[in-house]
Amino acid sequence: MMLKTTSEIDIVKANSSKINEVDFENLTFGNVFTDHMLVCDFKEGKWEKPVIKPYEPFLIDPSAKVFHYGQAIFEGMKAYKDENDDVWLFRPDENLDRFNKSAVRMAMPEIPEEIFIGGLKTIVDMERSWVRKGLGNTLYIRPFMIAVGSGVIAQPSSQYRFMIILSPARSYYSGEVKVIIAEHYSRAANGGIGAAKAAGNYSAQFYPQKLAQEKGFQQIIWTDDATHTKLEEAGTMNVFFRFNDTIYTAPTSERILDGVTRKSLIAIAKRDGIKVEERSVLVSELIAGAKDGSLKEIFGAGTAAVVSPIVGFQYQEDYYELPKIENSLAIQLKDKLTKVQYKLAEDTFGWTVKV
Amino acid sequence: MMLKTTSEIDIVKANSSKINEVDFENLTFGNVFTDHMLVCDFKEGKWEKPVIKPYEPFLIDPSAKVFHYGQAIFEGMKAYKDENDDVWLFRPDENLDRFNKSAVRMAMPEIPEEIFIGGLKTIVDMERSWVRKGLGNTLYIRPFMIAVGSGVIAQPSSQYRFMIILSPARSYYSGEVKVIIAEHYSRAANGGIGAAKAAGNYSAQFYPQKLAQEKGFQQIIWTDDATHTKLEEAGTMNVFFRFNDTIYTAPTSERILDGVTRKSLIAIAKRDGIKVEERSVLVSELIAGAKDGSLKEIFGAGTAAVVSPIVGFQYQEDYYELPKIENSLAIQLKDKLTKVQYKLAEDTFGWTVKV
Repeated sequence: MMLKTTSEIDIVKANSSKINEVDFENLTFGNVFTDHMLVCDFKEGKWEKPVIKPYEPFLIDPSAKVFHYGQAIFEGMKAYKDENDDVWLFRPDENLDRFNKSAVRMAMPEIPEEIFIGGLKTIVDMERSWVRKGLGNTLYIRPFMIAVGSGVIAQPSSQYRFMIILSPARSYYSGEVKVIIAEHYSRAANGGIGAAKAAGNYSAQFYPQKLAQEKGFQQIIWTDDATHTKLEEAGTMNVFFRFNDTIYTAPTSERILDGVTRKSLIAIAKRDGIKVEERSVLVSELIAGAKDGSLKEIFGAGTAAVVSPIVGFQYQEDYYELPKIENSLAIQLKDKLTKVQYKLAEDTFGWTVKV
Repeated sequence: MMLKTTSEIDIVKANSSKINEVDFENLTFGNVFTDHMLVCDFKEGKWEKPVIKPYEPFLIDPSAKVFHYGQAIFEGMKAYKDENDDVWLFRPDENLDRFNKSAVRMAMPEIPEEIFIGGLKTIVDMERSWVRKGLGNTLYIRPFMIAVGSGVIAQPSSQYRFMIILSPARSYYSGEVKVIIAEHYSRAANGGIGAAKAAGNYSAQFYPQKLAQEKGFQQIIWTDDATHTKLEEAGTMNVFFRFNDTIYTAPTSERILDGVTRKSLIAIAKRDGIKVEERSVLVSELIAGAKDGSLKEIFGAGTAAVVSPIVGFQYQEDYYELPKIENSLAIQLKDKLTKVQYKLAEDTFGWTVKV
């Protein structure tokens, strides 16, 4: 291995690349990783020097607090390659900002911009051959932090590990997405951690999700836990509802993730004269809209899937099929957003950052 | 029950013991571990043969689902040594039952009794010299399960690891415990995972707990997230309130952990003619009781602390000091329970299980 030392990041290069073993045409989301990973440890109150080294398993104590108390947060991001072979990140400052908000809520240390953004740029640059050209091809980026300090007492850890791992991806969802509206299970409590991108929020959804899938639905639309009357998120995505020519999505709150795709779609809609409102949509409004035809579209929005159109929803005993429409706003917005990400349209907001 | 033979468990003994390096008089809770750990992996739909081997760090992939989606559950138990040097477990069947309920809620595989109970007995027997005689000395037992399957897609893992680690302990809490009643933050959602002993439930409390500590309170009494009017748990413990001569504790629900100490105290109280009711206690009742003197005691109950008396509580702008009383029911119940656990009183319920 070649050891290269930059002033801010130590680099240990892999002896050989796995890239030729990868079938880029047939990728399953999130299970192939690139040759390197970034590791940065937090000990005795400070972040140590980050290291980029070959992707490999690491040693951890059985009593590490991440295993027992779930101190773990992450981000989901993507890198895109344009027609000139330049590689771009999309709004990485938003991910850093949210990561540090998640860190505060989970009593974990915030990470400095130099490590998060600097680390991202360095490792993505090293792995740029893993970013393939063409719409839909991306390098999915997973920055995360876990509590590695040992001890089975329910207190915040004193040691943490920040890592960045990278996985080449095509698209996340496929096929028709039918959803069921949650009547019993919930994603987040008032005063809970629903707005943090915390690991525990995700496994909490697996069982209700399994029950939904057994009934033939790919996703759940979550409702508020107190009354189950307000529509909040769709699975692990934010959710939008189009009534006539206006799209609605729940305002961010303690229960709702401040999604980068969500806020980018809202900004694009506003820029381009598509009516958009951030307000809670009630289950009763959805039913009424499905019955009177004013409900035109429902779609999820998130980094992995970008935009995920929903074809119909179940509520209690009834299934409501959405109309097949031309000029889908979901598809229009997805198209506008992805063109910015791939540098095929002007980035009027200055969202893209060159690696 | 007799100790099962070890034909079902592979055993790799440590070359030497760390026991002589341990200062048993000055243990910090949960940070010294015994010489061995039990490891049992779940792969391809089934549990493999458990192995007991030297306690040590293990290798795990950076994309393991426990780090990203928080699939992790645990139990807290203790072993006790009586005057005859016999070692006892307390209601291990209850822990197995709850562990498997947690597993279902977190979309993880249930664990067979042979592995959980059989594994417990075998490893505790091997480590019996770590269980010290004398009231307050225990061997804290931490069975836990984590998702070790790799891949950064938010779906249940296909591979899991069950482990048992052991830590000699004295007592968990010390000093006076003042609490603050939660008005904003919450522990659990309706339809959430509050009843599961899931890792994510604990880290979610760390930040509110830190804020409480900064205000001079050792614990938070959690209230229901929808209205913040019902008293639910105290920190990581169930909570009891004594008004005049009756003790009250919230009924178990999706938001409340079905604590083994909780249910044991209720059973002992009923057996011994102490009035006990399982019903929600309102914040308003607590305030009224503190003002008119009918509120006599508040105490937390859990495996680690057993019973943790609370000396006073803050609600909004006011602090309410509890009276200093003789004949504390908290102390009486703690005494009765620990005497059963240490075989100093008759085990009328058949709760103790010899190792």
